[in-house]
Amino acid sequence: MVTATPQRRPPERSARRMGRPRAIPNPDPGDPREEILAAAADLFAAVGYTATSTRMIAERVGLRQASLFHHFARKDLILAELLERTLRPTMQMVVALGAAALGPAATLWALVRTDVQTLRKNPSNQSALALLPETRDEQFAWFWKRRDRLFRFYQRQIFEGIDAGLFPRATRESSPDMVFGLVESVIHARPAVRRSLSTPPLMADAALRMLGADEGIIAGARALADG
Amino acid sequence: MVTATPQRRPPERSARRMGRPRAIPNPDPGDPREEILAAAADLFAAVGYTATSTRMIAERVGLRQASLFHHFARKDLILAELLERTLRPTMQMVVALGAAALGPAATLWALVRTDVQTLRKNPSNQSALALLPETRDEQFAWFWKRRDRLFRFYQRQIFEGIDAGLFPRATRESSPDMVFGLVESVIHARPAVRRSLSTPPLMADAALRMLGADEGIIAGARALADG
Repeated sequence: MVTATPQRRPPERSARRMGRPRAIPNPDPGDPREEILAAAADLFAAVGYTATSTRMIAERVGLRQASLFHHFARKDLILAELLERTLRPTMQMVVALGAAALGPAATLWALVRTDVQTLRKNPSNQSALALLPETRDEQFAWFWKRRDRLFRFYQRQIFEGIDAGLFPRATRESSPDMVFGLVESVIHARPAVRRSLSTPPLMADAALRMLGADEGIIAGARALADG
Repeated sequence: MVTATPQRRPPERSARRMGRPRAIPNPDPGDPREEILAAAADLFAAVGYTATSTRMIAERVGLRQASLFHHFARKDLILAELLERTLRPTMQMVVALGAAALGPAATLWALVRTDVQTLRKNPSNQSALALLPETRDEQFAWFWKRRDRLFRFYQRQIFEGIDAGLFPRATRESSPDMVFGLVESVIHARPAVRRSLSTPPLMADAALRMLGADEGIIAGARALADG
């Protein structure tokens, strides 16, 4: 069992146990801050970030704009918080996994599971907000930097697994991209297209299988990550 | 070698040979229609579909709006053509593969390769236009229906492969979603995040590996698809 070091966040939000990372809490119906975030996410996804005004968000929540500004001084701070939530539990898991030293196969397995879980658990389509063109603005550069840090952690596990002979079909050039892509693919799952959603552990199995890990390695990784 | 049946399109645009599907032609600098499409794609991706006017598109190409309307009577017809191009070569390949009867492993392999190639070959980020919220409007329902048809073709190959014992790690519930997701993941490859892009054949290998196909089956599928 591995304990995540709390990361500038109240402990009730941290992923404490590696076996069962905490889900992002569902919007608390009594919490105006959560209601603002949920309403903004819906509007951003439906009409885009630029076309959504703070007035529209306030109206949907049934708040006056002044009250909204009490919680978020600017519209970009709302999107920033929504974006951060798509990464937070995974980045906490990165810290925990870095400390746990489970080896590349189990580390990668646990990472894929937590990341898929985080991206899926976001209510409605909040993970897809990262696809909005406005996120490429300078003010959201921190988000892409964090995501890049996450990518490099994936990459490191794959490189170490290649060096250890665990991933005989992986290549340094293409495998990190493919595994990260497989995980990201849960972001734009559209109900119209998808019949089913595979579970996070199945995605983690598939990621290792894609690299050529044999079934013994995969079963061992799963057991170790479940602690 | 398998020949694709031409699909309501001039033969120079069809994917003729299974071994090397045709790329989507790059915008011909002399062709105003292609210039309009390229300019519109850039604007849609940068500021969104709603915020882009036909005037902005015309200005960027250096045409008067009247000339633009000669090529595309409405803005949605521009987006429709761009969306269609992200599917066209793959749907032609579906027809060719349906006729060729190569068996589920080689069919799936060839399908993944062509689909990845099509999504990648689109200049700049045209494949990502499918992620714009406006594509969910009723007027683009045909696009999602075609994409759903493509998904079902993927699904059928996976089901047949499971029945034939070729994909021992695949499940009917989750594998079609995972393979389709892996392919789609090339859509939002962002240069800031991605170091490398894996080639279409490597993606096709990875898709089969994810299903548990053994290396002999994968090599056979590749050889058969290459004709």
